[in-house]
This record gives sequence, C-alpha cells and structure tokens, in this order.
Amino acid sequence: MNVVSTRPEAPALARAALTYLAEPGDPALGAMLEICEPAEVLAAIKADLLPGPGPGCGDSAASRKALERALARWRARLPALPADADIAAACRDGGLRLICPGDPEWPDQLDELGQARPYALWLRGGADLKSACLRAVSIVGSRAATGYGAHMAGEIAADLGERGWTIISGGAYGIDAAAHRGALVTRALSIAVLACGVNHPYPAGHAELFADIAAHGLVVSEWPPGRPPGRMRFLVRNRTIAALSAGTVIVEAGERSGALNTARHAAHLGRPLMAVPGPVTSAQSAGCHRIIREWGATCVTCAADVIELLSPLTDPVLTNFGLADPGPLTATTPRPRHGPSRDDLDSDSARVLDAFPARGAAGTATIATEAGVDLDTVLRCLGLLAGSGFIERCDRGWRLRKP
Amino acid sequence: MNVVSTRPEAPALARAALTYLAEPGDPALGAMLEICEPAEVLAAIKADLLPGPGPGCGDSAASRKALERALARWRARLPALPADADIAAACRDGGLRLICPGDPEWPDQLDELGQARPYALWLRGGADLKSACLRAVSIVGSRAATGYGAHMAGEIAADLGERGWTIISGGAYGIDAAAHRGALVTRALSIAVLACGVNHPYPAGHAELFADIAAHGLVVSEWPPGRPPGRMRFLVRNRTIAALSAGTVIVEAGERSGALNTARHAAHLGRPLMAVPGPVTSAQSAGCHRIIREWGATCVTCAADVIELLSPLTDPVLTNFGLADPGPLTATTPRPRHGPSRDDLDSDSARVLDAFPARGAAGTATIATEAGVDLDTVLRCLGLLAGSGFIERCDRGWRLRKP
Repeated sequence: MNVVSTRPEAPALARAALTYLAEPGDPALGAMLEICEPAEVLAAIKADLLPGPGPGCGDSAASRKALERALARWRARLPALPADADIAAACRDGGLRLICPGDPEWPDQLDELGQARPYALWLRGGADLKSACLRAVSIVGSRAATGYGAHMAGEIAADLGERGWTIISGGAYGIDAAAHRGALVTRALSIAVLACGVNHPYPAGHAELFADIAAHGLVVSEWPPGRPPGRMRFLVRNRTIAALSAGTVIVEAGERSGALNTARHAAHLGRPLMAVPGPVTSAQSAGCHRIIREWGATCVTCAADVIELLSPLTDPVLTNFGLADPGPLTATTPRPRHGPSRDDLDSDSARVLDAFPARGAAGTATIATEAGVDLDTVLRCLGLLAGSGFIERCDRGWRLRKP
Repeated sequence: MNVVSTRPEAPALARAALTYLAEPGDPALGAMLEICEPAEVLAAIKADLLPGPGPGCGDSAASRKALERALARWRARLPALPADADIAAACRDGGLRLICPGDPEWPDQLDELGQARPYALWLRGGADLKSACLRAVSIVGSRAATGYGAHMAGEIAADLGERGWTIISGGAYGIDAAAHRGALVTRALSIAVLACGVNHPYPAGHAELFADIAAHGLVVSEWPPGRPPGRMRFLVRNRTIAALSAGTVIVEAGERSGALNTARHAAHLGRPLMAVPGPVTSAQSAGCHRIIREWGATCVTCAADVIELLSPLTDPVLTNFGLADPGPLTATTPRPRHGPSRDDLDSDSARVLDAFPARGAAGTATIATEAGVDLDTVLRCLGLLAGSGFIERCDRGWRLRKP
C-alpha cells in the first residue's frame, strides 16, 4: 500500500485516518492541522482529549465549544475507522494511492485554500498529479446538458487536450462527462475529482468512464475509499476542482447549477473564470450569461480563447519544466485530424492497430488478446489511435476508420 | 413645405441644398460649417470661391488643397441641385420635413459627433425626433439573421417598446427589420435611419415597413430625397444610429458584419455597447461574442438587462420631462402599460388628449383643429401621448387606448 510504501512514517497514516473521521473542509480540523502534527490530532481524537489552548486550537470559550462539538463528530466515526493494515490492503487491492501536503506529488496550488486545504488526496491512476496540474483547466457544467453544451464541452476539451492541457472535471453526467471524453479522445490527461471514494463510481453509469480516466489520468478524491457521495460533499469538492486548475470554464449552467458554485470558488481563488455563451432561449445557458454579465467571467468560444487567457499564467511555470506552449492556436487553425502517421506510433500502439480486423468491429478485450498486450495498455493505445484518426468507436466496440 | 414653413430663413434652405451637394460626414464641409453660415458656404460653392483663410477653412497649403478638391466635388453636383421651389414641392408632395441643428426638434446628442454632425436631417413621419430620442436604444445586426436572432431582436425591441423606449435601427433585412417590427407590434416609436433618401425605400421589399414606421415613428436620413444608397453611405449612416441612441444592442453579427461598425461608433461616442450572445456554433453570433470578450460589450439577454444599463443615463433627462422610467423590469414584473398619469402631461399634450373623440378615431389635422394647436405641436404631442400609452395608431388615424 502506497500510504505505507511512499510515506512509511506516521503523518501519512494519520492523515489517511483523518479523511475517514472528518469531512473535508472542516474548519476545526483545518485550524488544528495548521499548528499540530496530524498524528497528534489523531491521537487526541482517539483519546477524547482536546489539544491544549493555543492559536486556532481554541483560545476563546466559543471556539473551545466548537472544538468540543467537532471532537464529538469525529469520534462518532471512530468505530468505523479501519485498522491501518486494512486501509493498506484496500489500497493495494484497489490500486489506490494517498498523497499528502508536502509530498513531491502534492500540487502547491491546493495550499491557496488555506485552512480548507484537503487533509490528503486519494488517487486512482498512474499519472503524477503535480505535473498533470501544471497546465490544467477545469471544464464543468450542468448535468442536464443540452446537445449543444455537450458538443462545446467535448470540442473545447479535445482542442485543449491536443495542446497539452489537462482537463479537470467532476465526473458527473452532462458537461463533465463530455469534457472528460473530449480529453480522452485526444489522449490528453484528464482528472476526475469525485465527491465520494475513488473506488465508488458515482454516478454508477460512469464506472467505465472513470476506469478510462484512471487508465490514462487520475481519479481523485478527498474522501476515503468506499465513502458514498452527498449533496454537501459536491459543494465541498468543487473548491478542489477550482484550486487544482489554472482557470475554470463553465460550459452550460442553469440559474441554480452547482457549476456556479465551482465558478464562485474559482473567482474567490483569483483564478480566471470563463463561460461559454449559448442561446438566450436555453435555460442551460442562463447561468453562463449571468456570470459573464455580473461576475465578469470572460466569454470564451473555443480553446484558443482559453489558452489566450491562461497561457500567461502557466507558461512561466512550464518553461522551467521544458513544457512551454508550442505556439498559438487560433480559431482558424485547422485541427490536425491525423497527427502522427503509422510510422510515428509507439510499438504497443502499432501492435494494437495491427490487431484490428480489416472489416467490422472488435471489443476491447478481443483487441487486447489479438495484440497480446494487457487491458491497461490497450486502453491507453485505443485513446491514442482514436485521437490520431486511425480508429473510431462504434456500437460493437472499435473499428478502423476509413481514410 | 416644412423647410420653408418652419424655417423660412436662408439657413434651412442652404442646409437642404448642402445635403444634395456633399456626402454626409465630409470633413471639409464639417469644418467650414463650424465657422461659416450655411448660406455663406452654399454661396461660396456656387461662386466657385473658397471662403477666406481662417481657422478650419484652410490655413495651411495642405488644407487649402483639400478644400479645393472638396469644392470641385461639391460643384460637380451643382447641375443636379434642384431649385428651392422644387425641393419644397418634393417635400410637400412626399410629406417630408427637414430639421437643422438649432431647431427645437434637433436631438442635442447629435452634436457629440463634432464636425461629423449631420448637416441636416430629412424626416418622414409625424413623431418629434428630439423627444423620441430621449429614451432610445438602437438594435442592429446582420442582414443574414438566423431565426434565433430575429426572434431575440423582436422580443427585446417589443419589451423595450412596451416600456416606452424608442427603437432605432437601419431598416435592413434581418435583425434591423425584426427590431422595427418588434417595436411596431407594441406601438412603440421606431426610427429607421436610412443610407438613402427617405422616399427611396431600400431595400425595396421594405417599402411597406417604412410606411408603417413613418406612420407611427420616423424614417430619417441625411441624404436628400431620391438619393440611392451606397456601401460607404451605410458606414457613414451608422454613426447617426449610434449617436441618436442612449446605447446600442448588437443582436447578431458575423465577424465582418456592418453592425460591428455601428458598435464601434457607439463605443467611440462613449455610449453603452451591448451584445446578445448566441450559440458558439452560429457564425452569426461570432461578432457578438468577440465584442463581449474584446471590446467589453455587456452581455445582455433581455430588455431588463438593457434597461438596467441605460436607465441611469436617460432617467435624469426624462425626469425633467415628467417621463422617468416607471421602475425596474424583471422577467416576472408585469409590465405597466401607462407610465405618466394624465396629471403629468404638459398643457399642450393635455389639450391634445382632450381633443380626442371618446369613441373611434381622428386624423392628425382634425385633432389639431379640435385642440386649437398647430400641426407641429400636435405631432410632438401625439408622439409623447403614444409613448406614454394614452393613445394608439389605428387605420383611420389615432384613437384613445383602452386602459
């Protein structure tokens, strides 16, 4: 289990336990973690002892009272707290990892959340979170998306993905899913930030989508494995979506859409907030138009608009990593459908492509068997081959695309 | 002919002649009219004499040269200049009027155009231009409008019209026509500013629309009767649309739409510029999205958004006329039909209103006789009374509006 293998010392295990006991964003725990070690806090909870008086830990009678109530909340979950060994086993079996503040993979921008910073993050997938977030945009919106909204989310995500941007979203139906899928099609990194355990697919219909995202990018959560989602959890989760990304794009949002909550977090964090306009006659665009008019969100219509706004913020960082933006993408630049030729493919992708039947379709498992590669590899290669225009999805799986 | 009857002295006749000889916005003529009397300028053109050296009239050799070229341009049209009596006859027969800077009906806001101020305006229709422009919005856009754009233009114009706003547009196919029609449907004042003579319907398919506009509002032009339109004339005309209105709304505009030229004039004049968003997938909304993003145009989706932006600018003026905006219009607020009460009317308007038959309709001349006021006064009062919801147009003239 990575909790142990990467950080065998107590803090990581203590933080893992705290994600089981406290809801993310709990101000009492955030304040305590600013001045006490995680292991100390955990020990105090277990012993039913409040930490001694000190700044943020309960100077006044009122904050002492709040702390007592918090302690009771956290202690109520102690009976269900798994043993360290069980947490480790669950992680190992589920292919999960835990990263904590101070870890090399911890994205610095989360620290801008202050006391509301996540205690730790549970990850599913092999990508490195910190580097994935060096140039990342969140694209979020209504679950009740229109065809127009889903189209725009997918197009903008795919175009950003082709330019090396990571697409962050919430894994929900509608705009979120369209954004993730747009990224997957172009083999871009995608990060789904969930409001439940990373091994608890919600919505259940997205189990396969999350598997695809994890195969190539990351599924991320502040909640421990197995934890179900909840209404408040979505709202708390939204601050992490906003904080992980250089800017947030709202594609469609009704007047009361939860996406506007993410937009508000982005604005509070001082991150550029963007919105895609739509027909005034569509209720799903009303929230977008309102934040353009009233919150000063930038009206964006394509990936180039997003890049124009965000590049000045991310490129100074990326230049240090040798990853500067490869050049301007304008609305008139034709998107290359066929980037690499067959000769440019890596050996796995070439093998997967060769495994395709000349006519008709094949399922993922069949292709993996034919190609003699494992399922993870075939998933990665399918995304690359689809994004490069060699293959396409069809009802019965995948098929070669006619030139 | 009103040129003679309302301003029998030379300046009006001279300005009428100048509209035949020079293109509107000619900087040489604009500069001369700032320092010379119109009759002097006309006499100088006829005599092929440059006005004596003076500020703006040719101090330097270069400006002297420009003035000589301008004089040649104007003189080239002298052979086609109708005699004063013929101009008067054409006006009388066509029901046209000419108004000049300094006339009671001249809208002060045109003077903000500086030297590019119209030399005079030819009017067709009985409304009072100055009072019609006290609370006026221009709504313009693409000729190649989509169904969506035409719908939005008509809706916004109708809603603004119901709130006593005058709708100004360019009389073109597409958005302009939809805006005019939206105003007509709610019996609001509408002003079509043409790039050709007011008796020269262009496009020809809008002859009936212009007749409807003139019956209730005004058809306006800087070009003399009979003058055909031209590409440059549309661009020059656009400054007048922008200058007559408190703000400009672009409903649909492609990337190269002429509506963006009107938008630029509005921005240069410091008037609020607004744009209606639309689907990103529609080329006809691309110009709107661009001016929202790059020019800082306000994203508006309904009449209430427009009123919220413009009321603070127009209400201080209107309060002096007893016509202040009756209050905020939200999507759910029922629209009040009657702004000012009978007690708020000036004595002329009250007298004209009292002259109306209790049942049935009356013509303008009948009402003038009944009220014992002259025709100019009755026309001014009819516009005010219609705008305030007391009376309405009907086939046989005007009638009281049912409460």
